[in-house]
Amino acid sequence: MLEELKQQVLNANKELPTYNLVTFTWGNVSGVNREKELIVIKPSGIPYEDLKLEDMVVVDFNGNVVEGELKPSSDTPTHIVLYKHFQSIGGIVHTHAPWSTSWAQAGKGIPALGTTHGDYFYGTVPCTRSMTQIEINGHYEEETGNVIVETFKEIDPSQVPGVLVHSHAPFTWGKDPKEAVHNSVVLEEVAKMAIHTYQINSEVSPMDQALLDKHYLRKHGANAYYGQKQ
Amino acid sequence: MLEELKQQVLNANKELPTYNLVTFTWGNVSGVNREKELIVIKPSGIPYEDLKLEDMVVVDFNGNVVEGELKPSSDTPTHIVLYKHFQSIGGIVHTHAPWSTSWAQAGKGIPALGTTHGDYFYGTVPCTRSMTQIEINGHYEEETGNVIVETFKEIDPSQVPGVLVHSHAPFTWGKDPKEAVHNSVVLEEVAKMAIHTYQINSEVSPMDQALLDKHYLRKHGANAYYGQKQ
Amino acid sequence: MLEELKQQVLNANKELPTYNLVTFTWGNVSGVNREKELIVIKPSGIPYEDLKLEDMVVVDFNGNVVEGELKPSSDTPTHIVLYKHFQSIGGIVHTHAPWSTSWAQAGKGIPALGTTHGDYFYGTVPCTRSMTQIEINGHYEEETGNVIVETFKEIDPSQVPGVLVHSHAPFTWGKDPKEAVHNSVVLEEVAKMAIHTYQINSEVSPMDQALLDKHYLRKHGANAYYGQKQ
Amino acid sequence: MLEELKQQVLNANKELPTYNLVTFTWGNVSGVNREKELIVIKPSGIPYEDLKLEDMVVVDFNGNVVEGELKPSSDTPTHIVLYKHFQSIGGIVHTHAPWSTSWAQAGKGIPALGTTHGDYFYGTVPCTRSMTQIEINGHYEEETGNVIVETFKEIDPSQVPGVLVHSHAPFTWGKDPKEAVHNSVVLEEVAKMAIHTYQINSEVSPMDQALLDKHYLRKHGANAYYGQKQ
Repeated sequence: MLEELKQQVLNANKELPTYNLVTFTWGNVSGVNREKELIVIKPSGIPYEDLKLEDMVVVDFNGNVVEGELKPSSDTPTHIVLYKHFQSIGGIVHTHAPWSTSWAQAGKGIPALGTTHGDYFYGTVPCTRSMTQIEINGHYEEETGNVIVETFKEIDPSQVPGVLVHSHAPFTWGKDPKEAVHNSVVLEEVAKMAIHTYQINSEVSPMDQALLDKHYLRKHGANAYYGQKQ
Repeated sequence: MLEELKQQVLNANKELPTYNLVTFTWGNVSGVNREKELIVIKPSGIPYEDLKLEDMVVVDFNGNVVEGELKPSSDTPTHIVLYKHFQSIGGIVHTHAPWSTSWAQAGKGIPALGTTHGDYFYGTVPCTRSMTQIEINGHYEEETGNVIVETFKEIDPSQVPGVLVHSHAPFTWGKDPKEAVHNSVVLEEVAKMAIHTYQINSEVSPMDQALLDKHYLRKHGANAYYGQKQ
Repeated sequence: MLEELKQQVLNANKELPTYNLVTFTWGNVSGVNREKELIVIKPSGIPYEDLKLEDMVVVDFNGNVVEGELKPSSDTPTHIVLYKHFQSIGGIVHTHAPWSTSWAQAGKGIPALGTTHGDYFYGTVPCTRSMTQIEINGHYEEETGNVIVETFKEIDPSQVPGVLVHSHAPFTWGKDPKEAVHNSVVLEEVAKMAIHTYQINSEVSPMDQALLDKHYLRKHGANAYYGQKQ
Repeated sequence: MLEELKQQVLNANKELPTYNLVTFTWGNVSGVNREKELIVIKPSGIPYEDLKLEDMVVVDFNGNVVEGELKPSSDTPTHIVLYKHFQSIGGIVHTHAPWSTSWAQAGKGIPALGTTHGDYFYGTVPCTRSMTQIEINGHYEEETGNVIVETFKEIDPSQVPGVLVHSHAPFTWGKDPKEAVHNSVVLEEVAKMAIHTYQINSEVSPMDQALLDKHYLRKHGANAYYGQKQ
């Protein structure tokens, strides 16, 4: 079942080391079939180079394994919460990519400092609040999803396709697993440049709103004119 | 038409990933034929590894596509303005290379701090002013060119072959597309070393003018004596 | 003798350049056979790519070479002290990996700032005190082991499998040579992210203890649930 | 003539890109034959991958080309001064390697902060004073050598085999061209770790003298015991 989605999720997981987003098995990608409410996700703790199509795990929105011999990623409950609440997304990536993770550890969102950021993220990539002891000791991975959803109460997740989980690491998403990985690559690049920008000029302000509008809307939405298809 | 220039522009675009100047499709190179007032430029949004000679787009100085099936880079109007105003240049590169872009995001020019800089850039690589809301919401890419030209009112673009566009990223140029890429590589290296130099010594001054003169003129101009040909 | 352990130690040594942990011959891995109280260790000063199975040196707990034509690593006495005092460990790695070594040179332990750290190290990775002149001029390499042991008086080395030796560099360990290398890779990644975290937010506090407990115990101990086997 | 030395110098030049010490042609290696007072050096401005044995240029101690079709490196007069004054050295490297060059641009010597430094450099790697306008406008490359020699008035160049030229870049040396390249690799690593060490702890002091003595003398001099041969 879901062979095409499995292939997409497999390919997207294998892209994580290609783009230097992961050390060892520190990351996972999933994709969703909205009609069937089924998620395909990486199995837990398997190296990317060993992953095969049949290793992909299919889980339902309650976290039950529907197909697959292996245990799904321990982060599966986080993915489920995000798919339930962010209706527009089709793929999710979690990594411990070092620049993004440094911002998460610092407990700070990444402000839009330039057009590279604005081409993909329509404003600050937020950092969640710290999780409470009760959340941590309860259904921790599910609560991780909940605190992300809470962070996006006033933000459209299709316009800001990523988040930093406090003291932890980033999640990104997109219309499919491939785009979610793409956004992880961008987030890492943007995170790296933001720290260097502040080192050059500690007084720097977020970019002009008009410039952010221009760049985000040049690539997204009805009047986009970047690339060949739009 | 312009087969030789197309080949130069193709080769120069393919050098961008080789020199680690680009993520995804974040960069473009063009070249100009001064006699015919025609520009050859990368098509928009196509990965470098897929680029073929016939994908190169030929545009005139009014931005009309003269040859090619694909849409030219969305930055084409910026390139046109630069070719019109900087008579001595034959190739232009735009990237979001991370170290140079960090300086652009910081809104700061890169002072000449050592001979590596002085061998290629005869003084500070300037950062443009912020663009106004009217410029951003008007012909944005053309206005980007205009603000660069304004920045070089008192600077000879053949002696300082690069600029940082505020909150955006660098442009470099040269006598042909290959040299323009060369200057992008140098700018990235110089941008990286400048931030580290300030981290080691926040009080550092620009290099001695006599040393800058010596190094720039050792490689450029009538009395150059570096390399085999000069 | 000890052919299997020799193979493990050989493989682990060859992983050091693979994971970018070493420049030239700046690192060594050993493994122990607890029953026979024998250690297999890299020979001194031999490039990793030239290492062969028969080059591995076997030494006893008094430092006597029991088998092998070559001199063992000059750090052998340090390894011996650690094996004697840390009963639970089966492999040791010493490198001058640059991020970890920068913390050692700074004389600072690496606090647990996020879950990447907490997945492997149950608290701060400590830095030893400076060694005394008497220790340095005495049996220096053995005293290096002693100062590490002293640092772990109140810390369980199986829960914090690594240390920074003041003005020197890191040692890590694990249940076997492979896991010891794994922990060196993690320490280097954690050291890199910690410096960037402080650069983003100089006021950052160590991560919440409940979150540290959660992550460490999710991967270690009786109730671990990460990966396929646990 | 000098075929063996030419081969050594050729190999050493080709190592510069292998060890990521150079961008484009920004570096050169030479070697000396003390008996004949002849130097073999890289030709100016030729890419490393194109270098062939017959391209190596032989010059005498007055800078006259004795053999070779190509112009020698423009830095040749600096090399000559160093060979004349530093009797113990057999090879010299000049690069613009980015971490070392950042210290040179900052005008600061690199203090011995840890054993990696102490294994190769017996104390601070000094930075020269700024050159005067007269020196710059006179025989600039020769004066660069002179200011290095002046910097080593109280330092033994065989114990500190490298220097940072103010606002310029590093030179290193060794008993032969290969060791000179080795020392450039070490200097770059040490320069990188020193900046990170200060970022972690801006108050850090140079390493303990006893520890520096121990490490330097463990690898150098009559009582060395590191490696297989000593």
